Amino acid sequence: MKPLSDVGEIGLLRVILPTLRQRRDVARGPGDDCAVLRLPDSPFDLLATTDPVIEGRHYLPDTPLALVARKAVARALSDLAAMGGTPRWLLTDVTAAPDTPADKVSALYAGLEKAARHFHVSIVGGDLAEARELQVHIVALGTCPRGTAVLRSTARPGDLLLVTGRLGASWADGNLHQFTFLPRLAQGRWLAQNGYATAMMDLSDGLGADLPRLLDASGGLGCLIRPDAIPCSPFARRLGGSPERAIARAWNDGEDFELLLAIRPRRLPQLLQDWAAAFPRLPLTPIGQVLPPSEPRVLLSPDGTSRPFPKGGFDHFSQA
Amino acid sequence: MKPLSDVGEIGLLRVILPTLRQRRDVARGPGDDCAVLRLPDSPFDLLATTDPVIEGRHYLPDTPLALVARKAVARALSDLAAMGGTPRWLLTDVTAAPDTPADKVSALYAGLEKAARHFHVSIVGGDLAEARELQVHIVALGTCPRGTAVLRSTARPGDLLLVTGRLGASWADGNLHQFTFLPRLAQGRWLAQNGYATAMMDLSDGLGADLPRLLDASGGLGCLIRPDAIPCSPFARRLGGSPERAIARAWNDGEDFELLLAIRPRRLPQLLQDWAAAFPRLPLTPIGQVLPPSEPRVLLSPDGTSRPFPKGGFDHFSQA
Repeated sequence: MKPLSDVGEIGLLRVILPTLRQRRDVARGPGDDCAVLRLPDSPFDLLATTDPVIEGRHYLPDTPLALVARKAVARALSDLAAMGGTPRWLLTDVTAAPDTPADKVSALYAGLEKAARHFHVSIVGGDLAEARELQVHIVALGTCPRGTAVLRSTARPGDLLLVTGRLGASWADGNLHQFTFLPRLAQGRWLAQNGYATAMMDLSDGLGADLPRLLDASGGLGCLIRPDAIPCSPFARRLGGSPERAIARAWNDGEDFELLLAIRPRRLPQLLQDWAAAFPRLPLTPIGQVLPPSEPRVLLSPDGTSRPFPKGGFDHFSQA
Repeated sequence: MKPLSDVGEIGLLRVILPTLRQRRDVARGPGDDCAVLRLPDSPFDLLATTDPVIEGRHYLPDTPLALVARKAVARALSDLAAMGGTPRWLLTDVTAAPDTPADKVSALYAGLEKAARHFHVSIVGGDLAEARELQVHIVALGTCPRGTAVLRSTARPGDLLLVTGRLGASWADGNLHQFTFLPRLAQGRWLAQNGYATAMMDLSDGLGADLPRLLDASGGLGCLIRPDAIPCSPFARRLGGSPERAIARAWNDGEDFELLLAIRPRRLPQLLQDWAAAFPRLPLTPIGQVLPPSEPRVLLSPDGTSRPFPKGGFDHFSQA
């Protein structure tokens, strides 16, 4: 029998997810950043997502638990941002070994509460249980006006692709970005409520891994990306040395937690103008265009040469 | 520094929970079976709960994962039952070691989906992540008509205490009850919607552990329990040998997943009559009465002697 590490998290989920039967009150089930759940007689949809943060996988054992807590909360809220949702409530499942110092667990909870207050959400429940290792599972619940959640599966041929911020920064600042990033909540909500985004997701595993997911979810679309247009963080540029290597970092590094979105091309000028007024300090950058399913997915260099997408990003298990 | 095993799960949460600030849209935060969340402009409240099931803690490693999955789902739904809620959606966070056979993980998901269908809920999201051990975290979401959720903190002096079913059965049927029990969803909803229950919770850690929690949550109330009235499962009676030891099993054994509820005394005759019509095959048994906070918590024997509550039930960590 094949071990999980051979099949991979994503390979296994590809088989499992289609077997999950959905009630009629599920507007969007598994496979997106959040589930979109239709509340009876309500002007709002409920958004729900979970995110685990596990010692030795998502952070090193000597990382201060205040940072781990901040990361766990912000990761889950980034999924709400990617749908254009407003976060409201968290539940936190914590497991820890019996010999864990109680002070350490208290510090973790203090960090969770500090992050919750920072983002104006409440920890309304959860569980603390004995296990072999420290795990923090965050459940994030939010709302959006009914029918306005932006999915990752609704990009269309011809759409332009854009990203917020600058990519490849997750290892910047002494590796602190992954613990201190701001989920793009205001931006996601703004993009959804102004009807700009035809599809959206957050970049958690790297553009090179996440962009194909958006294209796959939208019906196996093709795509043309201009690598020289990808906005690289100063860190990626400094560490990369050459522009090509900076772009490789921006393509491969996970945990940027910026937004990737598609828009109709005719809306670009208005979007860029409105965006600059709303978020003057955060870049919003077109990086390419969605193509029909019959077309390939290529990187188009300024000299006119094109090449297929390099593999990128992070898949649990298969990179063990 | 004290390890978690010294402080105990409950001891630690007693310190942490009061520090968690609650938004105005939280009707009930941590400390009950579910959080009760107020949706804007909705005739329904949202109920949310999480429940972890961990290898070596909640089940033995050789337990078939189909049973583990059934248990994980039913445990979470029992929390919704205890508030009088209608379950709608599940999210499932699974962690597994990389060398776990992929077939085993698939079997787990098949079991989760089978249980979800059985209880008419949908698995709408979740995550699969690499870790050191197999853990299944279930998030259960449901609804109830606004303001009708039955809390554990609202019992009043004079209320009668009742339990559904028969207690002490968790190790019955070759230890299968804990995997095959039916969460009392229909009963919980019926009790809530007919306004019978002034307070309610499910019995997950044993009457001896859970009853004090209801009394504590309701303002530190006293209580008088008639041990000979506690309905013992045939299993507890058979295994106990003597009536006293059967009652001890019913008092101490966890994972019954029956409901414990309080009602106003004058409503007892009507409740028992209506209940027998609605649920003719499930006993509903008065076992005692709530007393003012100044009164002790005692077991009153038929011969008129009384004694304080024996310690009972299960606290993670402190029983490691």
